[in-house]
Amino acid sequence: MNSAEPGIGGLLRYRPQTARPLSELTEVLLRGPGTLARGERELIAAYVSALNECRYCSSSHAACAAAQLPGGMALVEQVRADPASAPVPAKLKALLTIASAVAHSGRAVTAEHITAARAAGATDMEIHDTVLIAAAFCMFNRYVDGLATTAPEDPALYAAGAQRLVMQGYLPPSADPGH
Amino acid sequence: MNSAEPGIGGLLRYRPQTARPLSELTEVLLRGPGTLARGERELIAAYVSALNECRYCSSSHAACAAAQLPGGMALVEQVRADPASAPVPAKLKALLTIASAVAHSGRAVTAEHITAARAAGATDMEIHDTVLIAAAFCMFNRYVDGLATTAPEDPALYAAGAQRLVMQGYLPPSADPGH
Repeated sequence: MNSAEPGIGGLLRYRPQTARPLSELTEVLLRGPGTLARGERELIAAYVSALNECRYCSSSHAACAAAQLPGGMALVEQVRADPASAPVPAKLKALLTIASAVAHSGRAVTAEHITAARAAGATDMEIHDTVLIAAAFCMFNRYVDGLATTAPEDPALYAAGAQRLVMQGYLPPSADPGH
Repeated sequence: MNSAEPGIGGLLRYRPQTARPLSELTEVLLRGPGTLARGERELIAAYVSALNECRYCSSSHAACAAAQLPGGMALVEQVRADPASAPVPAKLKALLTIASAVAHSGRAVTAEHITAARAAGATDMEIHDTVLIAAAFCMFNRYVDGLATTAPEDPALYAAGAQRLVMQGYLPPSADPGH
């Protein structure tokens, strides 16, 4: 495995057969058609990755969220520190609460969590996608850290990476996005 | 979401855009070309799902493992109860130890875990796939339980499902497996 390349990049190149569905899943969840803004979805990914203490994923998706949310990195930092007091809409707050439960265990999501999200205006599809984004980052965080990939410290590197991801997405350049 | 259909089936039908990469990932990891036997890979999936207390995934993949391992369900039960004392080869035991760490956190996997697996004969690809199978089931378990799907109790239902999965795999009948 290519430990010289930080984060998930080396892993995706090491095993193209798994890279393909992993990249497609990320693209659909974080950038595909949907009623949650892309910045909101990246925020959920960054938040779960921070809960899992995965520095690479947390930094990377925080940068992607900051690049696509009006509040920028200041808002992302507030959400990562304490979503309950962060200035985000009630619906997003309820979805972040669900994401936090998922990070702990799927069984930690309660009927009350779902009721609260619906009361705040979340659709079933938004709740579904929040659970799956949070669950998927419980996978990605473990994949990246379980194989001991490196995570740079310089925020400028993540910001530059985010610019590329915001423009080009998560599919490799050669992938066929026509499905 | 179709709560009448147990486990992940209803979720896959609810959201075909995410079902596609999820099914492809499962097929590659659990049944694609590789040096770990299919039954061994299913055993890792069942073991992690048991650690995450996800009854549906644990029962389903235990049945798939039992159908493809000479030791059958008795062996699967021993591994789920205590992998250290179960009669499995040293390499598989070392990989199950890694999978258990991943279930806790990616950061719980140590250099000593990797060294022990290599000393027992595991290749880098087998270690990679073990980490990703374990991480993927941390996702699937949270997906299935976070959205409160149902899990039947009757073992015969899982055994019948396993017969289908062993024959046909995880891709939907209409999917193109030609890549």
